[in-house]
Amino acid sequence: MSGNSIGKSFVVTTFGESHGPAMGCIIDGCPPGIEIDESIIQCDLDRRKPGSNEYTTKRKEDDKVEILSGVFEGKTTGTPIGLLIKNKDQRSSDYDKLKDVYRPSHADYGYIQKYGIRDHRGGGRSSARETAARVAAGGVARLVLKHLAPNLEIYGYMTQMGDQKIDRSRIDLNQIDNNPFWCPDLNAANSWKDYLEKVRKSRDSVGAVIEIIAKNVSPGLGAPIYGKIDTDLAAAMMSINAVKGVEVGEGMNAASLLGSENADEIFMDGQNKPRYSSNHSGGILGGITTGQDIIVRFAVKPTSSILSPKKTITQKGEETEIITKGRHDPCVGIRAVPVGEAMMACVLLDHYLLHRGQIGENGGQIG
Amino acid sequence: MSGNSIGKSFVVTTFGESHGPAMGCIIDGCPPGIEIDESIIQCDLDRRKPGSNEYTTKRKEDDKVEILSGVFEGKTTGTPIGLLIKNKDQRSSDYDKLKDVYRPSHADYGYIQKYGIRDHRGGGRSSARETAARVAAGGVARLVLKHLAPNLEIYGYMTQMGDQKIDRSRIDLNQIDNNPFWCPDLNAANSWKDYLEKVRKSRDSVGAVIEIIAKNVSPGLGAPIYGKIDTDLAAAMMSINAVKGVEVGEGMNAASLLGSENADEIFMDGQNKPRYSSNHSGGILGGITTGQDIIVRFAVKPTSSILSPKKTITQKGEETEIITKGRHDPCVGIRAVPVGEAMMACVLLDHYLLHRGQIGENGGQIG
Amino acid sequence: MSGNSIGKSFVVTTFGESHGPAMGCIIDGCPPGIEIDESIIQCDLDRRKPGSNEYTTKRKEDDKVEILSGVFEGKTTGTPIGLLIKNKDQRSSDYDKLKDVYRPSHADYGYIQKYGIRDHRGGGRSSARETAARVAAGGVARLVLKHLAPNLEIYGYMTQMGDQKIDRSRIDLNQIDNNPFWCPDLNAANSWKDYLEKVRKSRDSVGAVIEIIAKNVSPGLGAPIYGKIDTDLAAAMMSINAVKGVEVGEGMNAASLLGSENADEIFMDGQNKPRYSSNHSGGILGGITTGQDIIVRFAVKPTSSILSPKKTITQKGEETEIITKGRHDPCVGIRAVPVGEAMMACVLLDHYLLHRGQIGENGGQIG
Amino acid sequence: MSGNSIGKSFVVTTFGESHGPAMGCIIDGCPPGIEIDESIIQCDLDRRKPGSNEYTTKRKEDDKVEILSGVFEGKTTGTPIGLLIKNKDQRSSDYDKLKDVYRPSHADYGYIQKYGIRDHRGGGRSSARETAARVAAGGVARLVLKHLAPNLEIYGYMTQMGDQKIDRSRIDLNQIDNNPFWCPDLNAANSWKDYLEKVRKSRDSVGAVIEIIAKNVSPGLGAPIYGKIDTDLAAAMMSINAVKGVEVGEGMNAASLLGSENADEIFMDGQNKPRYSSNHSGGILGGITTGQDIIVRFAVKPTSSILSPKKTITQKGEETEIITKGRHDPCVGIRAVPVGEAMMACVLLDHYLLHRGQIGENGGQIG
Repeated sequence: MSGNSIGKSFVVTTFGESHGPAMGCIIDGCPPGIEIDESIIQCDLDRRKPGSNEYTTKRKEDDKVEILSGVFEGKTTGTPIGLLIKNKDQRSSDYDKLKDVYRPSHADYGYIQKYGIRDHRGGGRSSARETAARVAAGGVARLVLKHLAPNLEIYGYMTQMGDQKIDRSRIDLNQIDNNPFWCPDLNAANSWKDYLEKVRKSRDSVGAVIEIIAKNVSPGLGAPIYGKIDTDLAAAMMSINAVKGVEVGEGMNAASLLGSENADEIFMDGQNKPRYSSNHSGGILGGITTGQDIIVRFAVKPTSSILSPKKTITQKGEETEIITKGRHDPCVGIRAVPVGEAMMACVLLDHYLLHRGQIGENGGQIG
Repeated sequence: MSGNSIGKSFVVTTFGESHGPAMGCIIDGCPPGIEIDESIIQCDLDRRKPGSNEYTTKRKEDDKVEILSGVFEGKTTGTPIGLLIKNKDQRSSDYDKLKDVYRPSHADYGYIQKYGIRDHRGGGRSSARETAARVAAGGVARLVLKHLAPNLEIYGYMTQMGDQKIDRSRIDLNQIDNNPFWCPDLNAANSWKDYLEKVRKSRDSVGAVIEIIAKNVSPGLGAPIYGKIDTDLAAAMMSINAVKGVEVGEGMNAASLLGSENADEIFMDGQNKPRYSSNHSGGILGGITTGQDIIVRFAVKPTSSILSPKKTITQKGEETEIITKGRHDPCVGIRAVPVGEAMMACVLLDHYLLHRGQIGENGGQIG
Repeated sequence: MSGNSIGKSFVVTTFGESHGPAMGCIIDGCPPGIEIDESIIQCDLDRRKPGSNEYTTKRKEDDKVEILSGVFEGKTTGTPIGLLIKNKDQRSSDYDKLKDVYRPSHADYGYIQKYGIRDHRGGGRSSARETAARVAAGGVARLVLKHLAPNLEIYGYMTQMGDQKIDRSRIDLNQIDNNPFWCPDLNAANSWKDYLEKVRKSRDSVGAVIEIIAKNVSPGLGAPIYGKIDTDLAAAMMSINAVKGVEVGEGMNAASLLGSENADEIFMDGQNKPRYSSNHSGGILGGITTGQDIIVRFAVKPTSSILSPKKTITQKGEETEIITKGRHDPCVGIRAVPVGEAMMACVLLDHYLLHRGQIGENGGQIG
Repeated sequence: MSGNSIGKSFVVTTFGESHGPAMGCIIDGCPPGIEIDESIIQCDLDRRKPGSNEYTTKRKEDDKVEILSGVFEGKTTGTPIGLLIKNKDQRSSDYDKLKDVYRPSHADYGYIQKYGIRDHRGGGRSSARETAARVAAGGVARLVLKHLAPNLEIYGYMTQMGDQKIDRSRIDLNQIDNNPFWCPDLNAANSWKDYLEKVRKSRDSVGAVIEIIAKNVSPGLGAPIYGKIDTDLAAAMMSINAVKGVEVGEGMNAASLLGSENADEIFMDGQNKPRYSSNHSGGILGGITTGQDIIVRFAVKPTSSILSPKKTITQKGEETEIITKGRHDPCVGIRAVPVGEAMMACVLLDHYLLHRGQIGENGGQIG
C-alpha cells in the first residue's frame, strides 16, 4: 500500500526531495527485451526541465538520468529499473526564512500536522521536482508502448492560461513545439506571452488547463468499477502537483447535456470498424476504452509562491505576512504538459499489461 | 491488484451484476468493537434505493442487506465483513432485444472487445446497482468514523441539473431532504420538477453536478504524491457510474485564477487554531488535509438509455437504430448523491487508518 | 493490503466464521470465457467436506456452493465471481463453556489481545471451515488452468501421520483415493487406520505431513526476489490452519547436503528439452520454475482440541483446566490435502497470469 | 503488485544486479521523527558484507550506504527513504565463459525461459548481493522498532552446518559474535572450522540452518488467514536466496507430535501475565503473536557454484561440463544470519504498523 507508487502491473515508485541529494524511481514489472538508452529518456526529461524556457523557474538543473539496474546490453531484462537524477542547483538558503512560516496554499501546515517535521527547503517532497521521476518513468513506458501498440500516439497541450482560452477551431498540433507554452493555437500563444509577462510584472502567477490525448488506443483496455481506466487516469492526473480538477471527454460539461446530445452514435467505417458521430465520451465508456481518442483534461492552480504579500501564521501560531521569494514558475502549468503525457503513458501501459495478463493477446479470447 | 477493490487499510471489494442472484461486498480491515446493526446500514441503502421517488427507475428493489460475517453480538470483530444484497425485481426480458446490439454511450462494445462475452442484462457489472454495495460499505465506514472522528460530518447535494444551477446564496442544508433531488436551494428544487418532467416527456435524460462536503476533518490526513487524499477522492468519485469529471475546491476554475486570488490567507482563530480567509483549496493542500471543509464535486453524464432513437451497430457489425426501453432514471445523478457520500466516507476512513498506522494517534508524534 | 486476500492477478478474498451465517469468497481477475459449473466446484468441495469419512469431524455440512456473480450462460465473464457457502450444522452450544477460556495452542488469547473481542464459536474466523472457500477458489483456478496449461497436473497426498512415514519406494498414486488418508502407500494406509484409532481412543490427536506435486509446469513462471513462486507457495501453505513448516524440494534437508550432492545435473532429452539427473530443487530455482515437477511439503500440527485435560487460564486471568469437547478431527492434516492442492492451483494460476501480463504469451519474447 | 517489494505498511522495494552500477531500495511508509544516521545502518551492512571473514567470498565490497531522501536534520520525515549502495569490486570477466552456459542449480535456465534475456554476470538480479538492500532496510526497521517496542530483541544464529548440528544444551548467545559462523555453541563453532576447511579443500560447498528469534514481542500482532504473521515470515525467509524450507516453532517436527505433547499449557506468572509450559508454537497461534518468543528457522542449500565438474547444457542446447570458478562462499548460509534478522525486523515492524492502523495503540480498544 505504498503511498509513493503508481500502477499495478507497471509499478513506478518514486523518492526524493527538492533539496536532497537526488530524486529517482524504481520501475517494477517492465517487459524484457525493450531497447532502452539513457539518451532517449533524457529527451523526455529535457522537455520538463526547469529553466528550459524564459517562462519557467530559473533554477538550473540538467536533470541527467542514470540507469542503475534492469538494463543489460541496451535492453530491459524484466528486473526492476532503478533511475537516479541528482540534484545540483539547490539554493536552500532561499528558504531559511520560511523554515517556521506556513506558506498560504502550500502543504506546509499539513506536513507539520501529519508528520510533526518537514523538510522546508523548496517544498521538500511536495516540490514539482518530483515530476522529473514521473517523466523519466513515462519515457520508459513510451518505449514499451512502441512495441505493444506501435500506432499509439500520446501528446498534450495547453488549452487555457488564466482566463485566456485557445480557439479550438485554430488547433494546429504543429504549433505545439513552436512556442514556450505547448499551445496549439498560434494566436493564443502570442497573446499569452504578453499576458504572462503582465502577470509576472504584477508579482502574481496564473493557472492553466492542460489536455492530454491518446490516439489509436486499442479498444477493450480498462475494467468496470474500481479498475476503470478513467479512474486510474483521474488519480494519476490529480496526483500531479497543483492539479485541482480532472475531466474525461465532456468532463464537467457533461452535466449540462441532454442524453440525446451526449450520445456518440455508432456507424460502420467500411473497414469493418465502428465509426462514431462524436466523442463526448473521451474514448472511455464504463471504464473501458472504445478505440476513440482518449481525451483527458486537468486544471493546474496558479503557482502559490508569489511576490505579493499574503497573511499567514508561523509554526508558533503567530500571525504574520509573507512574500515568497525564490525562483518560481509564473505559470507552473506550463511544465505540467510533459508530466501529463508521462502519466498517460504509464497508465496506458499498465492497462495494456493488466489486460494481457487477464485476457491474453487476443481480446476476449482465452489466452 | 484487484480491479474491484477500493482502499488500502479499509478495503472494500464488491461483486455482482444487475440481473445476477445477488450483489455484495467484503469489507476487510474494519476496526473491531464497533456497534453495528443491519438496520443502520439499511438506512443508507434506502436513501439510494431504486423506486425511492417518482424521478428514479421504477424497478422495485428492497435492497435488504444481510451481514454474513465479521460481526459478533452486535459488534465488529475485526475480521472481514461480508455483506449480501439479493436481487429481486429483475425483468431480464426487457433486455432480450439488446442482446446483440451495442447501446450508444454504454460499455457494451468495450465489454465484447475486452472479454469476448458480456452479461447484457441491465448492463451487467456496469449497472448502477453496483453502487448499492458501495453505499452499504459507506454505511459501515460512517459507523467507524463516529468513533475515530466524532465531529466529522459528511453530506452531499445536487448543485446543477442539466443547465439549471442552484443559486449558492440560497443554499439551505435543511432543504436537502425536503425534495427528491437532494437540492439545497428550495427555488431550484421546485423549478427542477417541471424541468425534469419536460425532459422525460421529450423522451430524453439529463446530467447533474453533485457536491460532497466533509466538515471537521482532522488536519494531516493524506500524504504527498500518489498517496494524496485528493488522488484517492478523484479515483473514488470517477469510479462511480457515468461520472466524467471530478473537482476539489475551485476545481477546473482554479485555472482562471491569479495566485493572489487563489491564496487562502491564514489567521489565528483565537482558540489557537488557524482560520482561513477562504477555501479555494477545498480543504486539501499537497494531498494533505488542512482542517478546512473538504469540498469535492463531480459531474454525472445524462442517462444513456433514452427513448429517442439513436444510430448504432449490432455485434455482427450491421448498422441499426435503437430506442432503449426499460426502467431508467431520467437523471441518474439524483441517486449519485448517497453514493458520493459513501465514497467520501470510505476514503476518509481509509486515510484515518493509514495515518494512524504510519504516525500513531498523535499527529507527528512517534506512536 | 487486505489481510484476507491471496494472489496478485487471480485475487481470492475470503470471509466467514465457523458459526456465522455463511462463508465465501470473491475471485477477482478470472479470465473470461471459461466454462464453469457449480457441480464442478462442488466436486472439489466434497473432497474437503467435514464428515466425508470416519476419521474427520462428525459435523455435517453439505458445503453447497452458490455462484452469485461473474458467470453468464455457463461461462466466466471476467468480472468478480462471488461464491457463497451457507453454514448449516452449527452446534454453537458446544462452545458456550469455552466463551471465557483460552484453549491452549489455539488463537483465543491472541484474538483478545489483538481485537478485544472474539467470536468463540468453533474458533470463529480461525476455524478450518475457512478452507472451504479456498477449495472453491482452487476449483475455479483448476478450470482456468485447464485452458492455460492443459497438461498441468496437481495432486497431493499424505507422507506422514504422527511418526508413521510412508515408504517412498511404495508410492502408488492410484492408492491415494482408495483410503481415507490420501495415502499413496497401501501398507502405510492400512497401519494408519489402527494407529489413528489408538490415538483417538487415548483422547489425543496427531499431526501430519502433506506433499503437493505439480507436473508439467511451464518453465519460466515466477520471478526473482520477493516475487518468487516459492515465496508465494510458502505463504499460501503457511496460511493454512495449523501448518508450522513448509519445504520446497529437499526442504530443510538441503542444509545437510554438499553442493556436489544437491546439484541437479542437466542433459538434453532428445526432444530438445532439458533432462535432469535429479530434482533436489523441487522444480524451482531462483524463484523461477525449471519445468521439473514442483514439489512442496508442509507439516500440520496435531489438532489442538483434544479430550485430555490441559492447564490453561480464563479471560479473567484465573488458572483452570480444560477438556475440549466438540466434534474434532483426530488428524486435521487429513483434510489439508485438498486444501494444499487448491493453494497450489491458485498460486500457479496467479503466476501464469502475472507472467502473461509482463512477458506475453511467448516466454521471453515481447508480447 | 510489485514483485520486488515486501511489506504492506512498511514497504521495501529493492533494485539492482550484482554487476550493475548500484543496488538499493526505497522504503515507503516509515514513521516520521526517528533519529537515523548512515553509520547505524552501516553497522548492519558490515555484518553481512562479503569478505568480512575468511569463510566468505573474497569479493571486496565496502557496501557504503547513502541516504538519498526521506531524512531531514537527522530524522525521518515520513516520506520515502531512498538508499543507495554502489557496486565496486566487480570482476565481470570471471563470468564471460558462463554467458551461454546454464549453471546447474542456478536460475540461469529459468531466466532465459522467462525473460529471453539475462544479465549473466554474478547471477544478475539473483545474486546474494541483493540482500545488502534488505539488510539496509532491516537496519531502518530496527531503529523504528526501538521506539515502538523498546524491549523487543531480534537475533539469529546458525544451528547446523551441513550435517553438523549444534548441541542445544550448550547454546550461549554470547558466543554468537565470537566465531565466524554466528554459532551459539563454542564446541560446534570450533569443529565447524575444520569441517568447512575440508569441504572447501574438496572443492565443494555445504548448506546450513539458521534460527531467528524475536524476544518480547507484543501479543496480538498479525491476523487470521492470509494476513498471518507466520505467513509473512515464511514468505520473507523463503524469498532469501537459496532458502528451501521455513519452520515456525516445532516446524516440520510438529507432524510427529501428539496433541497432548504439542500443547503449550498456560499458567499465570504472578504479574498478571500468562506463562507457558513450553513454546512448541514458536510464539504464533492462528497467525497472531502470543507474546512468547517468535522462533523461525530456515534451511539454506549449499552454494551451487562449486569447483567440482558438473554436467549441464548450453543456451544452444548442447551438453557440456562446468566448473564454476569465481569468488564464492563455501557456505552461503553464513551470511544469511544478518539477512534473516533483517527480514524478521521488517516483518515485525510491518505488523506493528498494520496493527496500529486497524486497532490503534491499545490492543482491542477502538483507537
